Amino acid sequence: MTGAECLLRTLVACGVDTCFMNPGTSEMHFVTALDRVPEMRSVLCLFEGVCSGAADGYARIAGRPAATLLHLGPGLANGLANFHNARKARSPVVNIVGQHSTGHLRHDAPLTSDIEAIARPVSAYVRTVERVEEIGCETANAVRAACEARGVATLIVPADLSWSGAGEPVSTQSAESPAAIDSSRLREIAAILRSGEPAALFLGGRALWAAGSASAARIAAATGVRVFANRYGARYHRGGGRPSPLRLPYFPEPAEAQLAGLKHLILVESAPPVTFFGYPGRRSLVAPEDCALHVLASPDEDGVAALEGLALECGLSGEPANASSAAPPDWPAPGPLTLDAIGRTMTRLLPDNAIVAEEAVSSGEPILRHLAAGPAHEHLPVTGGSIGQGLPVAAGAAIASPDRKVIALEADGSGLYTPQALWTMARERLDIVVVVLANRRYRILDIEIERTGAGEAGPRANDMLDLTRPNVDWAGLAESLGVEGLRAATSEEFTAAFRSAVSRSGPILIEAILE
Amino acid sequence: MTGAECLLRTLVACGVDTCFMNPGTSEMHFVTALDRVPEMRSVLCLFEGVCSGAADGYARIAGRPAATLLHLGPGLANGLANFHNARKARSPVVNIVGQHSTGHLRHDAPLTSDIEAIARPVSAYVRTVERVEEIGCETANAVRAACEARGVATLIVPADLSWSGAGEPVSTQSAESPAAIDSSRLREIAAILRSGEPAALFLGGRALWAAGSASAARIAAATGVRVFANRYGARYHRGGGRPSPLRLPYFPEPAEAQLAGLKHLILVESAPPVTFFGYPGRRSLVAPEDCALHVLASPDEDGVAALEGLALECGLSGEPANASSAAPPDWPAPGPLTLDAIGRTMTRLLPDNAIVAEEAVSSGEPILRHLAAGPAHEHLPVTGGSIGQGLPVAAGAAIASPDRKVIALEADGSGLYTPQALWTMARERLDIVVVVLANRRYRILDIEIERTGAGEAGPRANDMLDLTRPNVDWAGLAESLGVEGLRAATSEEFTAAFRSAVSRSGPILIEAILE
Repeated sequence: MTGAECLLRTLVACGVDTCFMNPGTSEMHFVTALDRVPEMRSVLCLFEGVCSGAADGYARIAGRPAATLLHLGPGLANGLANFHNARKARSPVVNIVGQHSTGHLRHDAPLTSDIEAIARPVSAYVRTVERVEEIGCETANAVRAACEARGVATLIVPADLSWSGAGEPVSTQSAESPAAIDSSRLREIAAILRSGEPAALFLGGRALWAAGSASAARIAAATGVRVFANRYGARYHRGGGRPSPLRLPYFPEPAEAQLAGLKHLILVESAPPVTFFGYPGRRSLVAPEDCALHVLASPDEDGVAALEGLALECGLSGEPANASSAAPPDWPAPGPLTLDAIGRTMTRLLPDNAIVAEEAVSSGEPILRHLAAGPAHEHLPVTGGSIGQGLPVAAGAAIASPDRKVIALEADGSGLYTPQALWTMARERLDIVVVVLANRRYRILDIEIERTGAGEAGPRANDMLDLTRPNVDWAGLAESLGVEGLRAATSEEFTAAFRSAVSRSGPILIEAILE
Repeated sequence: MTGAECLLRTLVACGVDTCFMNPGTSEMHFVTALDRVPEMRSVLCLFEGVCSGAADGYARIAGRPAATLLHLGPGLANGLANFHNARKARSPVVNIVGQHSTGHLRHDAPLTSDIEAIARPVSAYVRTVERVEEIGCETANAVRAACEARGVATLIVPADLSWSGAGEPVSTQSAESPAAIDSSRLREIAAILRSGEPAALFLGGRALWAAGSASAARIAAATGVRVFANRYGARYHRGGGRPSPLRLPYFPEPAEAQLAGLKHLILVESAPPVTFFGYPGRRSLVAPEDCALHVLASPDEDGVAALEGLALECGLSGEPANASSAAPPDWPAPGPLTLDAIGRTMTRLLPDNAIVAEEAVSSGEPILRHLAAGPAHEHLPVTGGSIGQGLPVAAGAAIASPDRKVIALEADGSGLYTPQALWTMARERLDIVVVVLANRRYRILDIEIERTGAGEAGPRANDMLDLTRPNVDWAGLAESLGVEGLRAATSEEFTAAFRSAVSRSGPILIEAILE
């Protein structure tokens, strides 16, 4: 058995059975080993940022790592931006990177680069395999590192180790086992809640999943504590009448307004809320200056268990909060397409238990607001702000959960960083409806240019935010990559297109041309 | 004047007047300053790999740096792969990367990352500006570093420095002044050439430009020394009857055959030839084991002057070698499209003094062979092997040289790493004919899979090299990004399309569907 085959078999034995890949010469032994390791699903991507983003989306939904297989330092470099997002999402990923053969490395051939140095800024763990006898152990260690750190574990494999004879694959069970929450901490937090001083829970990580949000809602109902969500959490359960904490707004002023007057902010699997960017003369921290910060559960601890423990400490029994049935929104009025209209239509037509992968910072909010009143779904938002995550995350989520409909809610500017994801959607016949919100502008920058005090945008500045010279034909782009493309410029057209798209299976893109 | 304006004005004062950008919030002051610094041309790219590749192409043709303006660590990360190619091409680039404002940085906001660490593997110089008073000097230093090191100089600018008040811009003249070649070295090399032992010159860097190749050809004619080119040189003058040294083949066996029997290999601005990849049981060095390596000029020295000095040392007068007029190839026979047919047509129709940006490792050779007999042109080949350089390099070359026709000879697999370059070609109305060689396969890997001894490709392995599920519609892709797209599946269709394309101005893409 070659080192490459041993590595693949070890991955499978450790529970990693999906690999997003863009292999090159130094990875050919992995590719031929695929026919001997049928348990490993291999998904070809045309650009490495699709691999890394798909692995992020996969991990967010599956709760366990996929592998990526990338070609040398430059292949890794192309995957880096979405690994940054995976890191911020706390998504486990086992990132296999081929390296030149050991003897070749010292000759500084064209593709030679310092792979470890490229990997480190986004990786929780970086190792280069040094002996083929250890390739099984090294692979199992990388899986364990990815799971335990909930991050990217990069394993670099020189080509000669992938083609040399190796030992047996290694099996390991690695499940993250977060530390138990100290009961004295629960008592302290409960005392704060009983103090009557204005307090709020700030949820991130797994505390945003249904069980965590439900416990938080019960505590809130009993104590009057407010509940907010870190908007950069990786995965939210929303809709279906379940309680869903308010995501803190993107911009500092409305975010600060939400937290105004608070004396205690209780962090559950989250760092304190900070603004996305710094602005002249503004604080970065969002909570009031005299608001005390308390940690109920750190990001490495189990926030759901902590919230359950806190509920018990507050004397609340285990019964769930009642689901409140919010009324769905009215259908949109006919006319030119607006974000509000898209939100209404999507909420009315959203299939139950859908996954909404969203990358639409300036356009998403009016849609997401409606969706909260829709059927139960999961929302996978922007985590690290590296642009180009939405389409790959949607692809990975669809592979992790083939029975669920995935909606990719994508800004037209952001989508153009990784449009190659569409090809993988077509190839794998993924059940995804991509909605491209085409305002033909880097809209967020219209706002940021003012916020940063950069002054009036003259014609040349304006031109750098403008995506109309030429307009991108998103429906045509989708078709060129094998995905059916539809176009909608009115509410009626969008409703017809979305209805058609959700009633069928397979990838479809709707270019939503905004007024 | 803001720090951002001071930086832009300093760039202009230092001779850097073109900036390929994909700015975000932290770069807004640069964007608004564009209206106050009209001397700076700003070129918007939809993906940072286009910025970095275009800056490489610009530098190869202009012989001086362009700037890039990228957004934080993730924006830099997306540009990394083409910066790798720029580094290998020895292209000067002034890479400006925005950073969070100083006060914001410690809060680990979503987009926070270690920008210096991300930059280092591809940069000859990395600096973070610390005081706004120094932004002019720091910028001038970065320009000087890029020019002197002929590499990527990365200057990281915290947002608060770009929005604070700065002093006057700084002007500096920085021209690389390579060390003179020691005359004793010229005598030693001349003695080797006179020894009668089999010897060859191996040219890289600027030695591949017309003057260097001409001197080498004169020396060869007088002494019998052979002349080879490093195939990863950044820029070759070819065609027009000028001598053009043989590029060593990509694969080791034919490359070794070319050098077989040599006792002396004389390096001119090049490291010794090595294979692109290491293979089981093969050496990485291409020259025979008993072949002595001599350095006439290191990559940091002036190879053209060294070759002229060597010619004088060999007693050759300054008169140029006669241009030999190679006969142009016949027109291709009608029928299904082949690489040979593309090469014939392109050679017959190539405009004089064109630039051929080529990224077609497995398909390019039959075309390039014909082109050597065509009119004078420059060839910009693959340098570092990071895939996705061809289209951006073509865009940058066209901006550096608006009066010349640029041909982008692009493999269909490689082109899909940075297709966003097409949009910039449309926006800037660049005079580029993109020829996509559509074999719908990672063809090079068919060969490499065998060479690496990876064994028979089973159906699953084969599927990872296959780009037909679905076929990419390259002409449609071009149209979706605003570039006219043509399709050719026969020699006749290709000739008609190419004739039409070169007779007009502005970007056109021809999808050459290979039999």
